[in-house]
Amino acid sequence: MAKFDSTLDLSFAALGDPTRRMILQRLARGAASVSELAAPHDMALPSFMEHLKKLEAAHLITSEKQGRTRICALSPDAFMPARDWLSEQSEIWEGRLDQLDDYVTKLVKERKNDP
Amino acid sequence: MAKFDSTLDLSFAALGDPTRRMILQRLARGAASVSELAAPHDMALPSFMEHLKKLEAAHLITSEKQGRTRICALSPDAFMPARDWLSEQSEIWEGRLDQLDDYVTKLVKERKNDP
Repeated sequence: MAKFDSTLDLSFAALGDPTRRMILQRLARGAASVSELAAPHDMALPSFMEHLKKLEAAHLITSEKQGRTRICALSPDAFMPARDWLSEQSEIWEGRLDQLDDYVTKLVKERKNDP
Repeated sequence: MAKFDSTLDLSFAALGDPTRRMILQRLARGAASVSELAAPHDMALPSFMEHLKKLEAAHLITSEKQGRTRICALSPDAFMPARDWLSEQSEIWEGRLDQLDDYVTKLVKERKNDP
């Protein structure tokens, strides 16, 4: 049961913000320094750093100091837990729709055979 | 650009809570009344209704009054926007990893040919 799965909580919550999704979209294209990442955002650096912190706490990104620069990268399999959860629910849901479809087809057939 | 995509904001934010994910997991198995949904949660009804409101605002569920009962159902394609966004980023990211892999293979080959 995913009730207390804090990975999913942190991951989805981190994804629910447009600035953080833009950072992830940039990092999917390759690692970048904090200043490169911050450049397109009209935001004070401390607020921007808060977004990076949330992404790192959710294990969506990693960061590493190289000299005086901090380099951020997308975590390997960053999106896996969120994608897995969504796929699992979609499969259950689509499975139900298929069952419903079969049931309606069966009803229609029965009606035709037994007017 | 997904910067102002409020569907994704609401959708991911709604998914970032264990109670709301449990409700969605239940509804993936079929429609249910509010009281059926609330039963497994040790929570006052007004707080529980807040969760349902957030799921409905994010277009993840729909609800309909049938007599004195309110019935909730998963929206068709509820998870589509979130899944699409995650798949798109994963493809870009995996594409980059493949490129890196090709590059390393090429380097190793060149080294072997030119010791």
